[in-house]
Amino acid sequence: MPFERIAILGTGLIGASVGLALRRSGFSGTVVGWDKDPAQLSIALEKGAVDVAAQSGLAAASQSDVVLLSGPVFSILDWMEQLAPVLKPGQLVTDVGSVKGVITERASTLYASESAAAFLPGHPMAGKEFSGAAHAEAGLFDGAVWLFTPISAMREHASLPEREWRQWVCRFGCRVLDLEAARHDHLCAWVSHLPQLVSTALSAVLEETFAADEDLRAIGGRALREMTRLGASPYSMWRDIASSNSDALTVALHALEQRLAHIRENLKTPELRAEFERANQFRLGSNADLAGEES
Amino acid sequence: MPFERIAILGTGLIGASVGLALRRSGFSGTVVGWDKDPAQLSIALEKGAVDVAAQSGLAAASQSDVVLLSGPVFSILDWMEQLAPVLKPGQLVTDVGSVKGVITERASTLYASESAAAFLPGHPMAGKEFSGAAHAEAGLFDGAVWLFTPISAMREHASLPEREWRQWVCRFGCRVLDLEAARHDHLCAWVSHLPQLVSTALSAVLEETFAADEDLRAIGGRALREMTRLGASPYSMWRDIASSNSDALTVALHALEQRLAHIRENLKTPELRAEFERANQFRLGSNADLAGEES
Repeated sequence: MPFERIAILGTGLIGASVGLALRRSGFSGTVVGWDKDPAQLSIALEKGAVDVAAQSGLAAASQSDVVLLSGPVFSILDWMEQLAPVLKPGQLVTDVGSVKGVITERASTLYASESAAAFLPGHPMAGKEFSGAAHAEAGLFDGAVWLFTPISAMREHASLPEREWRQWVCRFGCRVLDLEAARHDHLCAWVSHLPQLVSTALSAVLEETFAADEDLRAIGGRALREMTRLGASPYSMWRDIASSNSDALTVALHALEQRLAHIRENLKTPELRAEFERANQFRLGSNADLAGEES
Repeated sequence: MPFERIAILGTGLIGASVGLALRRSGFSGTVVGWDKDPAQLSIALEKGAVDVAAQSGLAAASQSDVVLLSGPVFSILDWMEQLAPVLKPGQLVTDVGSVKGVITERASTLYASESAAAFLPGHPMAGKEFSGAAHAEAGLFDGAVWLFTPISAMREHASLPEREWRQWVCRFGCRVLDLEAARHDHLCAWVSHLPQLVSTALSAVLEETFAADEDLRAIGGRALREMTRLGASPYSMWRDIASSNSDALTVALHALEQRLAHIRENLKTPELRAEFERANQFRLGSNADLAGEES
């Protein structure tokens, strides 16, 4: 008895892309959407990312087999609180939050009892520097990894909707990988959150130094465009991530600052060679996956 | 009487791409190539980037109308010294070095007299993270800016080969922009050299922290690939740039370090919003040129 109704609470970039990906992958049930911003919800409806625009997220969730919480981390935590007493065993709640420690911990208290719905914390490693349903695409998850950080108590007996949700994620073109939540947050601080903040810092310092300089605009090439692309990312998407993964991010940022200082102090010494060789090794050596893909 | 023979000294990525671009743009004269590495020269010959492989760079240069010096900054300076006493008025020497202060200053002493060849310092804002003739492309300069930092004494009476070289550069698909050499080095420190060193630092710190971690390889998405792409750039291309533009780079690196520290200290405060807004402004506001181009 496959699930027939999914509620997507938060129909921005990721939520609406999931709706489109479900449809492209042959999902024949009903996708109910809700968003606190009616404009996002109506764009999602127009694009066919959702079939039905719900007035109430709570009502939509209570009537669905699967509930996808899609939005900033703190809004996911809010919905987890609101939904826990309302939902029933047999229903599955899953999410796409970028930080998994706080979410997985909260789930292990709110969704652990036998009378609760199941909760599967998830995180697709895909996105854009622009938010909103207008940028949603069915192919957003092609080739990406969709991470799950299952609550340990639930691992042994994955529910039917959980196994089914994992299959849909595979049909979106994703590889699935299970991690401990703490390890997820550690890794994502380095591979996702740090690159974002570096691009933000680089863009911000260029804006402050050159604001109205026409020549700067004219001469920047691919390196500048690429390294500042994520500078366009909105604060609204990143506030909760920076706040809820601040410990891991503090370590990563500090390490990078030290590295840049070391490079700055060695612009004219052979030590600079060692830094380039370490960097080459990352791209060309053990990480063959990364090399060349976009060249 | 258009120029009929060009010598390209250094047939790596940029030199060989110039040869291919000349041919694609309809240059009907002879392209003579020389490289200190015979392997690079024979790849350039096989690809049709040069018509003739010269045994001696000096002989090739002395018999050509235009001489393009293509290689690391210090090798360009070496060739400038060697060629100055050999070349004659009517011949043009130009280069593609990434730092223009030292080159323009040297040119203003070596190539200023009436008995000397003309010298036009140049710098195409195009490249790749891989060096070598094997990666050369006729289209490498499409849409790029080709900067010139003319020696002030020569500005008023551009030679015929100089005017002609500027036309070829336009035919490669470039926009041409003239700058003072000091301003060139200041701008390039920020838009080209800083992004490179940030990518090197990020790649190096990831290599040191995660070297053999399979999960890191698996989960990294577009943000990681893009922000570390330039980590593959070889030290051999960047050593001379870091060394000869170290003053401007020191300022730029230090400013970025301070910015990252400021962000690190404000991961949980509203000040983070201001940083994101400055970064957004750089990408979306005054720099409309940059936005969206690769999204």
